[in-house]
Amino acid sequence: MANAAGDMSGTGSAGRVRRRVVVLGGGFAGINAAVALANLPVDVTLVDRKNYHTFQPLLYQVALAVLSPADIAQPIRSILRDHSNIEVLMDEVVGFDLEERQVRLKTGALLVYDYLIVATGSTHSYFGHDDWAKLAPGLKTIEDATEIRRRVLLAFELAERQMLEKGTHPPLNFVIVGGGPTGVELAGAISDIARLYMRNNFRHIDTKQAKVLILEGSPHILGMYPEDLQLKARKQLEALGVELRTGTVVTDVQPGYVMVGDERIDAVVTLWAAGVQASPLGRMLGFETDRKGCVLVDEHLNPKGHPEIFICGDLAHVEQDGRQVPGVAQPAMQMGAYAAKRIGCLVGFEAGSEGREVRGFRYFDKGDMATIGRKAAVAKIEWPFKAHWSGFMAWLAWLMVHIFFLIGFRNRLGVFRQWAWTYLTLQDGARLITGSQDLPGWKDEP
Amino acid sequence: MANAAGDMSGTGSAGRVRRRVVVLGGGFAGINAAVALANLPVDVTLVDRKNYHTFQPLLYQVALAVLSPADIAQPIRSILRDHSNIEVLMDEVVGFDLEERQVRLKTGALLVYDYLIVATGSTHSYFGHDDWAKLAPGLKTIEDATEIRRRVLLAFELAERQMLEKGTHPPLNFVIVGGGPTGVELAGAISDIARLYMRNNFRHIDTKQAKVLILEGSPHILGMYPEDLQLKARKQLEALGVELRTGTVVTDVQPGYVMVGDERIDAVVTLWAAGVQASPLGRMLGFETDRKGCVLVDEHLNPKGHPEIFICGDLAHVEQDGRQVPGVAQPAMQMGAYAAKRIGCLVGFEAGSEGREVRGFRYFDKGDMATIGRKAAVAKIEWPFKAHWSGFMAWLAWLMVHIFFLIGFRNRLGVFRQWAWTYLTLQDGARLITGSQDLPGWKDEP
Repeated sequence: MANAAGDMSGTGSAGRVRRRVVVLGGGFAGINAAVALANLPVDVTLVDRKNYHTFQPLLYQVALAVLSPADIAQPIRSILRDHSNIEVLMDEVVGFDLEERQVRLKTGALLVYDYLIVATGSTHSYFGHDDWAKLAPGLKTIEDATEIRRRVLLAFELAERQMLEKGTHPPLNFVIVGGGPTGVELAGAISDIARLYMRNNFRHIDTKQAKVLILEGSPHILGMYPEDLQLKARKQLEALGVELRTGTVVTDVQPGYVMVGDERIDAVVTLWAAGVQASPLGRMLGFETDRKGCVLVDEHLNPKGHPEIFICGDLAHVEQDGRQVPGVAQPAMQMGAYAAKRIGCLVGFEAGSEGREVRGFRYFDKGDMATIGRKAAVAKIEWPFKAHWSGFMAWLAWLMVHIFFLIGFRNRLGVFRQWAWTYLTLQDGARLITGSQDLPGWKDEP
Repeated sequence: MANAAGDMSGTGSAGRVRRRVVVLGGGFAGINAAVALANLPVDVTLVDRKNYHTFQPLLYQVALAVLSPADIAQPIRSILRDHSNIEVLMDEVVGFDLEERQVRLKTGALLVYDYLIVATGSTHSYFGHDDWAKLAPGLKTIEDATEIRRRVLLAFELAERQMLEKGTHPPLNFVIVGGGPTGVELAGAISDIARLYMRNNFRHIDTKQAKVLILEGSPHILGMYPEDLQLKARKQLEALGVELRTGTVVTDVQPGYVMVGDERIDAVVTLWAAGVQASPLGRMLGFETDRKGCVLVDEHLNPKGHPEIFICGDLAHVEQDGRQVPGVAQPAMQMGAYAAKRIGCLVGFEAGSEGREVRGFRYFDKGDMATIGRKAAVAKIEWPFKAHWSGFMAWLAWLMVHIFFLIGFRNRLGVFRQWAWTYLTLQDGARLITGSQDLPGWKDEP
C-alpha cells in the first residue's frame, strides 16, 4: 500500500520533480481547476464519487422534465480526456493526514499530494431534521432531480386515477420550502407543467387547479437580489398563480402535509429548497469553519497555515468587501482557476523561475439571474454593464448565458434544440416516472 | 365502488350506447390498438403500470449509453392526448371477472368493459432461478437499461481505480447469456464501448483488453435467422473481438462468475438475454397457455369462447403456416391494429350497419434485423423485396427503418442527432453512473 501510494505521489520515484496535485470534487471549481492545471508541469488526480460533472444551474429543468439527465451531465473523463497529465478517479474520500500530505480513500488506499484542492461543494441542510429528507427532497444531484420529477408527475397520475376510479382526489398542492433561486425556479416550472405542458393530457382532473406555494422563512424571496427585483419576481410568480408566504417558518414535515406552527398545510408533494450546508469534508479537514461548515480561508484560498491546500467553491468561506462570496457557479469556477494559477506560480518558484507573484483571489461578479417559468426571469447584471432586468428580456439573457456556459458542445446543441422544441410546442421532453410508484402520504381512499 | 365502476362501463348510464374498450398495456400492441380505436364510436381506457411507452428495439442503446431514456420513451398520455375518446390510467391489474366483464385493479377499483384487449407483453425468464435476476439483469424496461448501463460503466471505473490504487485489476470479462438479437446487440455495443468510445478516457487500464463472451445454449446464435445470416453475424461479431460459444448452457450464476457444468467463467458483469416468459396476466385470465405462458388464440386473436377478448403482442400465441409468430414489435403492432379493426366491425354489426366481415389475422412479415456494433448488421428482408443483407448495407437499412418507426416526431429528430454525433465523434451520449456504486462480486482487494 505504501508503495502504491508512493508511486502515485510523484515524489517517490527518483528523478521526478513533477508535483502531484490532487483535486477533490468534479463540480465547477474542480473541473475548472483541473482544466487550468492541464498546461502546467504537474500531474493531477481528480477524485469524485460520481463519474460525471453536473451543470447544476439547470438541474431544476431535469426535475421538471424539460431536459434529460444526460443533457446536463457529462462524464468527467470525457471532459478531461485530452489532458494526458490528468487522471480521474471515481472514489470517496474518508479522511486526511495533513502532516504526511495524504488523502485517505474509502477503499483504504492513500493518495499523496504536493498540492491539494478541496472543492466538494455543499448539500442540503434540514436544520437537524434529517428525517425530513425522505419526505421533502432537495435539488443538488441528478438523483435528486429524477426523484423530484417522479413525485411531481406521479401526483398528477394518482389524482387522475383516483378521480377516474372514485370520483374525487385530494387537492394538488405543491409546497416548496424556501424562496431562494432554486425554490423560485421550481415553483415557476411546476406552474408551467400544470398550466401548459399537461394540457389535454388528462380527462378527469383539471391540472390547472394545481396550486404551488412557496414558504420562505425570511421576509423576502430571493434574499440576495436587490429589492426592486424581489418585487418584480413576486409579481411574476403571482402572475403564474404561485402563492408566496414570506416570514413563514416550517416547523414540521410529515407525509402529505407540513406544519407552520399550529397551521397544517396539505402538500401532495413537498420540495426542500431552504438550507444548504457544506460537504462534510470541510469539517474533516480540521480547520476553522463557519456555521454551515464552510472552511475559513485567506486571500489565497488557503486555510490557516497550509499554503499547499486550497478550498474552492461552495466549501470555501470567502469574505469580500464585508460580504460572503455566494455559493453559486461563477465564484466556484473563478476559485478553481485561481487555485490552479497560484499552484503554477508556487511550482515556478520552486523550479527557480522568476514566477510572478499571484495577487489574492477576488470574485469578479458578472451578476445573477433566476428564471420564473418559461418566459420570465430576474437578472441583476454587473458586467459588462450594470442593470436590473426582469420579464422576457431577463429570460432571454438567462437563455444566452446558460447555453454559452454549458460545458461540452454536444450538450449545448442538445439543450438548445430541446428548449426550442419545448418552447414552441409546449411538449415536455422527459416526462418519465421511473422507480417506485408510491408517494409519501398518498392515500388511495378518497 | 359499484357506482364508480358503472360510470366507467359505458353501459350503466341510460341512453349510452357507446361501447367501452379496455386496453391493458401501453406497448406496441396496446398503443396501436388505441390509436386505431380513436376514430371508432367507442370509449377507450388504456391501462399501464408505467406512464410511458418504450421503444423496445432501441433499449440496448440506452443500456450502452448511446441514447438517454427519454429518447426512446414517451408518455402514453402525450401520444394519445389528441384523441378525446381515450383515457389513460396508470394502474396495475390484479384480476379479472370474465363473466361480469370486469378488470380488477390494484387499488380495488373495477373497470367494466364491453371489449378487452390484453397486451401486457413478456418479461425475462430465468428458468426457475429467479435469484439470478439480481446478478444478471435482462433488458426489457428503461430501469433494466439504466441498470445495465450502470454495471458496464462501473466495471471500467472500478478497474481503473484498482489499477491506480493497487496496480492490478480483475479481467474485464463481460458475459452475455443468450445469443438472440438482444444478446448480439448488447455484445456488439459493449465491444464498441471498450474499443472506441472509451478511448483516451482511462490512464491506467487498457479498455481494449475487455472481453465480451456470448454463451448460447442452442447450436446457433440468432436462431430465427437463416443460416447464411447466422454465419455472417458470427463473423462480424468475431471481427469485433466478441467470443461466441454455442451449445453452452449456463448452469449457475454467482456474483463474479457463471458456471457451465464444471467450468467456471469469470464475469465482471453478467447480462441475461436468454429466455422470456409471458406477462402473468396471461395465466391470470384462465385460458389455455403454452409453455411460456402465452395465451392460445384463434384467427381473430380471441381466446376460446370469448369473442369480446383479444390477446395481442408477445402475450398471444399465434400460429401461422405451421410456425409461431415471433414476439417482436411488428407482429405486436399488427395485432393491435387488427383487434381494433375487428372491434369496429363487431360494434358496427350491433349498431345495425352492414359492417363488412373482418378476415382472420395474418402477420405480414417485412423482415427482421439486428445490429452488430456501430456499422454492421444482419437483415432478413421480406418486403418490399426479398433479400439477405449483412454488413454496412444492412446497418444502413436498420438505421432508416428505426428512425422511421420511432413513435413521436421529437424523439425521431433527437435520436438521429444523437446517432450522428456519436457516429462521427465517437463520443457516447449518456455515460452516467446513477444509483448504487456496488457491483455484485467485485472485490476491492487485488
